[in-house]
Amino acid sequence: MSLSQRDLTFVLYECLQSEQLLSREHFAEHDKSMFDDVLKMAAELAKKEFAPHYRKSDLEEPHVVNGEFQIIPETKQALDKLREAGFFAAAASFADGGMQLPNVIWNACQALFLAANCGTTAYAFLTIGAGNLISSFGTTAQKDMYWKKMLAGEWFGTMCLSEPHAGSSLTDILSKATPRADGQYNIKGSKMWISAGDHNLAENIVHLVLAKLPNAPAGVKGISLFIVPKYRLENGALVANDVNLAGLNHKMGYRGTTNALLALGEQDNCIAELVGEPHQGLAYMFQMMNEARIGVGLGGAALACAGYEYSLSYALERRQGRALSNKDPLTNQIRIIEHTDVKRMLMAQKALSEGALALCLYASRLVDDHQTHEDATSRHEANVLLELLTPIVKAWSTHYGLEANYHAIQILGGYGYTREYPVEQIYRDNRLNPIHEGTNGIQGIDLLGRKIPMQNGLGFQLLSSRIRASTKNARENNLFALAESLDHALDAAQETTMTLMSAQASPELRLANSWHYLEMLGHIVVAWQWLIQASVAQTALQQKLSASEQEFYNGKMQTCKYFFKYELPKVAVWSNLLTSFDTTTLEMQENWF
Amino acid sequence: MSLSQRDLTFVLYECLQSEQLLSREHFAEHDKSMFDDVLKMAAELAKKEFAPHYRKSDLEEPHVVNGEFQIIPETKQALDKLREAGFFAAAASFADGGMQLPNVIWNACQALFLAANCGTTAYAFLTIGAGNLISSFGTTAQKDMYWKKMLAGEWFGTMCLSEPHAGSSLTDILSKATPRADGQYNIKGSKMWISAGDHNLAENIVHLVLAKLPNAPAGVKGISLFIVPKYRLENGALVANDVNLAGLNHKMGYRGTTNALLALGEQDNCIAELVGEPHQGLAYMFQMMNEARIGVGLGGAALACAGYEYSLSYALERRQGRALSNKDPLTNQIRIIEHTDVKRMLMAQKALSEGALALCLYASRLVDDHQTHEDATSRHEANVLLELLTPIVKAWSTHYGLEANYHAIQILGGYGYTREYPVEQIYRDNRLNPIHEGTNGIQGIDLLGRKIPMQNGLGFQLLSSRIRASTKNARENNLFALAESLDHALDAAQETTMTLMSAQASPELRLANSWHYLEMLGHIVVAWQWLIQASVAQTALQQKLSASEQEFYNGKMQTCKYFFKYELPKVAVWSNLLTSFDTTTLEMQENWF
Repeated sequence: MSLSQRDLTFVLYECLQSEQLLSREHFAEHDKSMFDDVLKMAAELAKKEFAPHYRKSDLEEPHVVNGEFQIIPETKQALDKLREAGFFAAAASFADGGMQLPNVIWNACQALFLAANCGTTAYAFLTIGAGNLISSFGTTAQKDMYWKKMLAGEWFGTMCLSEPHAGSSLTDILSKATPRADGQYNIKGSKMWISAGDHNLAENIVHLVLAKLPNAPAGVKGISLFIVPKYRLENGALVANDVNLAGLNHKMGYRGTTNALLALGEQDNCIAELVGEPHQGLAYMFQMMNEARIGVGLGGAALACAGYEYSLSYALERRQGRALSNKDPLTNQIRIIEHTDVKRMLMAQKALSEGALALCLYASRLVDDHQTHEDATSRHEANVLLELLTPIVKAWSTHYGLEANYHAIQILGGYGYTREYPVEQIYRDNRLNPIHEGTNGIQGIDLLGRKIPMQNGLGFQLLSSRIRASTKNARENNLFALAESLDHALDAAQETTMTLMSAQASPELRLANSWHYLEMLGHIVVAWQWLIQASVAQTALQQKLSASEQEFYNGKMQTCKYFFKYELPKVAVWSNLLTSFDTTTLEMQENWF
Repeated sequence: MSLSQRDLTFVLYECLQSEQLLSREHFAEHDKSMFDDVLKMAAELAKKEFAPHYRKSDLEEPHVVNGEFQIIPETKQALDKLREAGFFAAAASFADGGMQLPNVIWNACQALFLAANCGTTAYAFLTIGAGNLISSFGTTAQKDMYWKKMLAGEWFGTMCLSEPHAGSSLTDILSKATPRADGQYNIKGSKMWISAGDHNLAENIVHLVLAKLPNAPAGVKGISLFIVPKYRLENGALVANDVNLAGLNHKMGYRGTTNALLALGEQDNCIAELVGEPHQGLAYMFQMMNEARIGVGLGGAALACAGYEYSLSYALERRQGRALSNKDPLTNQIRIIEHTDVKRMLMAQKALSEGALALCLYASRLVDDHQTHEDATSRHEANVLLELLTPIVKAWSTHYGLEANYHAIQILGGYGYTREYPVEQIYRDNRLNPIHEGTNGIQGIDLLGRKIPMQNGLGFQLLSSRIRASTKNARENNLFALAESLDHALDAAQETTMTLMSAQASPELRLANSWHYLEMLGHIVVAWQWLIQASVAQTALQQKLSASEQEFYNGKMQTCKYFFKYELPKVAVWSNLLTSFDTTTLEMQENWF
């Protein structure tokens, strides 16, 4: 399971011009060949250490025997190699012992690992996300104690938000933190759906836990963030911190990553450290959640790419049937890629998977601009646009990434439905992504209810002007028809957005179809990414190229056309639905079901 | 796992007026209460014997230990009860010891079993289909020998078409049948993807096998049909017939049903009987395949209903979050059905699942009209319309049934992704249905390439006039706007069809988007089924009704509106794509991928 490295470098350098980052002080010590080396190392590691146990980690799901975790040794070995190669600290600064890589380069590496084996990869990425949170909001002592170990890949990390009765509704968490005389806190509560919540892959697990202090304000305003290690350091020794595995969830897919119900402080012996200020926990956690939402979108895109690549290689070899115009049974069977309907399913996958990947990397590039752009306005704008795009990155990439995987199975037919081929596992694994880190429905509400009105619509304005710049550029590249289509679609989205924002409607009515709003804007954003790619390809095709390069760019041009012809017209359907303020769903009574 | 019996009786009697069948001679000995009793018995059996081991049959997949099948005992017990209740002979005539039930009533029973446990159900339905084939084309001796045992549920049956190198392309099968001196045949070959291909649930398994006689014409014209029992009768004893299990396929879902690679005649000792005339095998087999395609569509619909019912009951109980307009964390959490986005996902499921089920039962009613209508023209027309609708029944119901199941998981959130809740299994099981009995892509080609042009477009004409009759009726019921929408959509479909049929285009270009043609016509056909339901509901609502009946009909009205508002507008997108004769996919070169 892999994704195309040529596609990665195309997006990174030709579309996102990531080598421009080298001119910034923060990345001044790098050069492009160093980026290339890192990508190459990631690709090799993904291929050698992650991909080979993809199926095995599904068949031999982690489980507990007599209190001991049984996890296939390949998982730890892959993570050890990742650690040895320094990837746990890829984005950390030189000062902290990291590689100080741009986010966009690091996320390209992540995509390679996720495509190869998302279940094993998750342990590392959760650790990195949790570490970043401590690095942003923790004290120097906390960084020295926890983050350093996490950067080294010696201790792993998690995020502990949900509880059994409070999955999406964090307002309602019940975990309690009680101050102790020593300045620390006693934690008591249950945490549910904790990915990598327990295992024996690392010396320690650093849980970042949301809990409430005594007399905290009700709701999300009373949530604080705590560091709760599985083992705490006492007199130089690690001792159990009363964080106990209360059960493992048995998932449909993504089985390589444990998912745990944790009991904290059952013996009143779970000691925690507060991170930052009291009651600011959710705001802090959102840093990790936003990072994780990009990561989940990237997972959706990477698995879509993996399914595409696999079904493509299958379609190039498998012989079955003959051309529609050939009725002679004595001729040889043709390779199924020669059947137009199979080609259609490959194009659909290419359009959805590479479109999603480009979008995820675009967002990753915005992270870099937010953090390192020389210009303050540009930094601010990058952040606003990133906030707007985050729910689309998360939800569009996972929803349509899964649709791509549907086609991959369909191309393999009966074989695709068996556990002897990887595409069914890819499909099962990817089915998690529309659920975790905020369901896709919640992303729709976040987009339309919060991100669109934010700062008087600045995010949407920034997005629109960037898209218009791209359509202008496309016209200059003679891509008139494509530019015209995207401009029209954006016109419709602008009208739709205005209508939704200006109307005197209840939040319930305004947001009734927020999921379809996300689909509408998502399709426009991905069409935009394809137009950028087509413009680059068009320019490249003017030059003298090797045959394989010419084929690559032709494929980009053709797939852009596919997306514009098959997918973009759906925008009109969603726009009509949204502007009609349809009340069908709202009026439906629960006893009418 | 179940589906709504109220919905079944609504479709059967109020929409399809199945009690009119009682006036036909073939059903004269029945009355409506007898139909009701059968449905009730099926519902009880489904609930008591099929549903309880649904998960267990997934977790403890059938497997072989030391040459012995290990299948959980509940499977055999359920099938024994089905046999004892006479359901293996439900549609067979009184003369043959059957219940002589209308196809539409029997398929309603099938839907109940499929919703409860599709994996166990498949053994029986394959037996019935195989038995019907022998009954249609076998000799009296073959019927006495095999069919009687199958009607009694003592011997089971299969269909053996595919081979490892010939899945969809039956032209290319290699299995050979050599005439023997005794008038029988020696069979040699491999058969792949054989559902219920081996097990120990019945005394014998009667395989219906496609193979080629010596010097047979090339291609499908040289395929003959054979009865190949697992054990043949010799001197009154059953002896092994050299039909050997070469391997079990390990599937993503539908695990309760074994799926086998069979080796026939490895020891040159596999003896078969020819069914009917030589070289007519594929034509015969199409009877079973067409029946099976309706059955697969019904499976897609039934699983969609099962997921809908389960996620509905969950949404009515699970408390999470608050109304968008309520920011007070001290108020109680609301049941998730109160969230508009959850309601939207329930409406989508109701629209897709009950729409598909109505379509499947409509097609089943056509089978009855074809077989028992008093009027010869009506019989013929029913058959032509059935042929047209079969690919839609199969492919639309399974594609959109699976989409419904996606929503069911989404409503349960993290819980929905675990094996502790049934919706993930329903989703995995249903994923088979777009593949087997002809992939959905092949159904699209069958529809546009064969069924539409058939008899100078008679099928499409019949469909159109029936839809127009329904829109006329809907107008009389004051459902103007809905009737108008469907008429417009049908206009578009008629134009699209004319354009595709009249153009001088290669088959490759004409059929390049046949899958989207199927989606387009499928959406119209399902909208039509919803309009029929809304017209019936509208009439019913004029009368004095109990509260629950009023709610039921209101739900039907509202869901019809949903389908027309959210789904039907997509017809324009597909129609535009199809009439533009888009060449994007055709032009894509394989080395551009």
